[in-house]
Amino acid sequence: MATYSPRLNRLIEALRRLPGVGPKSAQRMAFHLLDRDRDGAAWLTTTLAEALTGIERCPSCRMFREDATCSYCADARVATGQLCVIEGPADLLAIETAAGYRGRYFVLMGKLSPLDGIGPSELGLETLAATLAGGTVRELIIAINPTVEGEATAYYLAELARSHGVAVTRIAHGVPMGGELEFVDGGTLARALSGRLPV
Amino acid sequence: MATYSPRLNRLIEALRRLPGVGPKSAQRMAFHLLDRDRDGAAWLTTTLAEALTGIERCPSCRMFREDATCSYCADARVATGQLCVIEGPADLLAIETAAGYRGRYFVLMGKLSPLDGIGPSELGLETLAATLAGGTVRELIIAINPTVEGEATAYYLAELARSHGVAVTRIAHGVPMGGELEFVDGGTLARALSGRLPV
Repeated sequence: MATYSPRLNRLIEALRRLPGVGPKSAQRMAFHLLDRDRDGAAWLTTTLAEALTGIERCPSCRMFREDATCSYCADARVATGQLCVIEGPADLLAIETAAGYRGRYFVLMGKLSPLDGIGPSELGLETLAATLAGGTVRELIIAINPTVEGEATAYYLAELARSHGVAVTRIAHGVPMGGELEFVDGGTLARALSGRLPV
Repeated sequence: MATYSPRLNRLIEALRRLPGVGPKSAQRMAFHLLDRDRDGAAWLTTTLAEALTGIERCPSCRMFREDATCSYCADARVATGQLCVIEGPADLLAIETAAGYRGRYFVLMGKLSPLDGIGPSELGLETLAATLAGGTVRELIIAINPTVEGEATAYYLAELARSHGVAVTRIAHGVPMGGELEFVDGGTLARALSGRLPV
């Protein structure tokens, strides 16, 4: 069976390590980089090397950081007494951009999923427990996506917070702004009704 | 608006240069590499740098090569007098693996597509014309995919070969082996009928 040359094969193999990239996509990417975008490939090499040496996880909130101090763990944020637990870095940006929230965060980088081998220690929940025990947190805000694993994770987090005597809240799930009742799915509508608030 | 740190932003931008990767996929790739697969990321950096310095295009057949001599342009292949024109490196491997063909190749790396700015010179057709003029080719085999641009490219190639007095053939298009007439599309069936051969 004919194969590509060794370096090309290695490049295709390496590109397959990217999430969601199969053998055919990896081939297409390799040909594209080598044939049409060598500048892009060189830039990717540089930025990747730079990111690997320069970016680490904040030991306290688990967000990516470049500097010795994490801007999301600043004293002013600690002073609010609020800590918001989210699944990933993209969720942090979404809340930071839209919600006017100025408390601390804790980024799980995943959800509890025992079948995939993701338990409390993979999500760094000892760190969260230590923070809760530290006495600086008055309210733990759970902003996990409402999927099956998300619900299980939220339940676990709520129990953890209660065991440390910290108040727990969860962001509201219901009909989205601008949405129409008629087109909202049953699960969302049921949640919206059961979570109704006095006006 | 909140954004990621500069290095992370640059990495996401660089990953977007890969074909088929949008902003959300690039984010997911960056997080995956930094969070779960730093070894993979380091390996990708190495292989990419290695590929950029070590892989070039053969000036004669336009296939990727690593060594000073191209194995697909060897004298034994020239001696067959056959030259097969294909769209991409993956097509070369497919023919090489399955077909028992031992002639030379010419890799277009695309198809004629004037609307996308891809004309004869982008496909290196001057090189092909020079090879045809050299007198070593007796038969030009067109193995371009039968799409709209592919048909136009095949027509152009056929004219080019005729102008150099070289015989032109095209690989057969018809019902695939193991396929059933009942489930074959109309275009393929029409082509299979019009291309029928005496038995």
